[in-house]
Amino acid sequence: MASTPSTAPPLGTTTVSIDLGDRSYDIRIGSGLLDDPDSYSGLPRSGTALIVTNTTVGPLYAARLTKALQSHHKKVLVVELPDGEQYKDWPALNQIFTTLLETGSDRKTVLYALGGGVVGDMTGFAAACYMRGVPFVQVPTTLLAQVDSSVGGKTAINHPAGKNMIGAFYQPQRVICDIDTLDTLAQSELLAGLAEVIKYGPIADVEFLTWLEANLDALLARDRTALRHAIKRSCEIKTWVVGQDEKESGLRAILNFGHTFGHAIEAGLGYGQWLHGEAVGCGMVMAADLSSRLGLIDAATSLRIKALVERAGLPVHGPDLGADRYLELMRVDKKAEDGEIRFVLVGPLGQASMRAAPDSVVREVIALHTGPR
Amino acid sequence: MASTPSTAPPLGTTTVSIDLGDRSYDIRIGSGLLDDPDSYSGLPRSGTALIVTNTTVGPLYAARLTKALQSHHKKVLVVELPDGEQYKDWPALNQIFTTLLETGSDRKTVLYALGGGVVGDMTGFAAACYMRGVPFVQVPTTLLAQVDSSVGGKTAINHPAGKNMIGAFYQPQRVICDIDTLDTLAQSELLAGLAEVIKYGPIADVEFLTWLEANLDALLARDRTALRHAIKRSCEIKTWVVGQDEKESGLRAILNFGHTFGHAIEAGLGYGQWLHGEAVGCGMVMAADLSSRLGLIDAATSLRIKALVERAGLPVHGPDLGADRYLELMRVDKKAEDGEIRFVLVGPLGQASMRAAPDSVVREVIALHTGPR
Repeated sequence: MASTPSTAPPLGTTTVSIDLGDRSYDIRIGSGLLDDPDSYSGLPRSGTALIVTNTTVGPLYAARLTKALQSHHKKVLVVELPDGEQYKDWPALNQIFTTLLETGSDRKTVLYALGGGVVGDMTGFAAACYMRGVPFVQVPTTLLAQVDSSVGGKTAINHPAGKNMIGAFYQPQRVICDIDTLDTLAQSELLAGLAEVIKYGPIADVEFLTWLEANLDALLARDRTALRHAIKRSCEIKTWVVGQDEKESGLRAILNFGHTFGHAIEAGLGYGQWLHGEAVGCGMVMAADLSSRLGLIDAATSLRIKALVERAGLPVHGPDLGADRYLELMRVDKKAEDGEIRFVLVGPLGQASMRAAPDSVVREVIALHTGPR
Repeated sequence: MASTPSTAPPLGTTTVSIDLGDRSYDIRIGSGLLDDPDSYSGLPRSGTALIVTNTTVGPLYAARLTKALQSHHKKVLVVELPDGEQYKDWPALNQIFTTLLETGSDRKTVLYALGGGVVGDMTGFAAACYMRGVPFVQVPTTLLAQVDSSVGGKTAINHPAGKNMIGAFYQPQRVICDIDTLDTLAQSELLAGLAEVIKYGPIADVEFLTWLEANLDALLARDRTALRHAIKRSCEIKTWVVGQDEKESGLRAILNFGHTFGHAIEAGLGYGQWLHGEAVGCGMVMAADLSSRLGLIDAATSLRIKALVERAGLPVHGPDLGADRYLELMRVDKKAEDGEIRFVLVGPLGQASMRAAPDSVVREVIALHTGPR
């Protein structure tokens, strides 16, 4: 076990607990967790386990996870999915089902999601559906997945007509965030994860926003102490929000700050053109400007958010889809009701809410922040 | 409203309540319910509703249901799926998602399942997954769906390697069983439904088994009073079982009496060759014989069950798949654990339990009840 008894250990194991009654689970954040059999103690034991990963992460970590699980399961299988948001679809999901069925896996088989947000979302949805539900464990290996997509029980695949349209609320048994796995992350993926980290400041925690402004260079240089704090604080904030609203009827929607514009960018370009976090980064700039135009924050605060996104190396100018297409794409967003787009807006800084906005103002935002430059 | 104040009305509306906390719902059984707007009162109101039906049931009832829902929803859409168990698959499920997305349906849209068990299972699973969950209502139009598949929240699609392997536990808002819709049912479909009715006797209620033996001719002649009692009693028994074990961890599995052999017949021949109820009928004969060979009931009781299935016009001899193939198919059954097949067996009559059986005895049962005659 990687935990140490000293005070304030820079890379010790921290646990964030999510309290959801009989579906409660822990998020463990630390160094060396992937290889440590103790990380998996207390999880459901089954004859068969299936590690779901992708062609990028699998070669790096699947053998190590398999070894760590040997004492826990009789048989540990691995399935490698193609890597990328464009494969977050039915054929790839069905690859998981086919592997499970061809190996005679039963309803006690445990799935392990080893990879980023796409692997986590697909593994979680597969676990929710296979024989109407088997246990699963998240082992996120990207910053994005560690701070966001492995927390909260949202699982899904994409449909050609909309992102994350087909899915389930389904909780993992545990989330194991091994900071060491971020060493192999491409810089663009690190930045994409930072977009979701930055998000938590404007919507919930001004102090964290200030901390991010002061520590952005350390995060970009992959300083472990800085990363550890960013992951922990992000998980805490998300946990707090999700704990109050598991099924996304109200408060939880604020976690989608930047996502309404962001999803439109991703869907409009075709999934996989921009990284999800890149689209969210740009989406936050647009949502901040919309918040400002509606009088919820002042222009300086909107520019402060934009400056941080830009310093993080994330795009702040969206693709040229045309305002009509942006609006059309946002109307099929899951937050829309009877065709009315619902935006997550900030105001005052550190608080967020979901509300509609006049099309004319949304068009101003789209005109300023997208299109040819 | 079709309810009447007189005592013991032959075709009045009866309500069976399923108590599942905040997911409780009612089953209404009666005559004229489909066309009566009151049947839908108190259900979630939404701008858009989608009736999911098939190419057989749609032309008969979709316009009538649309009319009955006019006062409840602004826009009522209809999607017709191909008819048959062989279409209980991903492409047909995706037809529902595509229709929902192309019409801009949101997460408040209500789905109505109008048809038999396949339509109900697919609509329920689509409702469970679309935007991670929208409300749905069951309007079953077959005896099988009225007595079985619309009660209990089990939804699923098939995978080429196994039946109902991909699905969710998801409860409807209400089940509306209009007995009048059984008038248009093919006789083979009526018999298939009777298989599931007969099932409830051996596993839970000897008195009901005796009633069925006395009233089988009336049921085959579609006597409404007899049908109404059979549906009500079946729903009551299933409700009682499901209420104690929603997620099928133990007791609920007894509802699968005849289904382990039955699923092997369906999967072995290819879905759609035999009706589900036909396979279950034959499967009950095999499971009863297995119960007898293991000493749980005597041979006469096993033959009593076989006689009733045979009188009902259901097959009592399975196809010639070979014992190895039967065993292979049953090992991927959802009830299997680490490759050990778990059978629902009867004994004493009126009680059932789930247990393993020696392969040699299972082979004797397969040898006697399947193959060339």
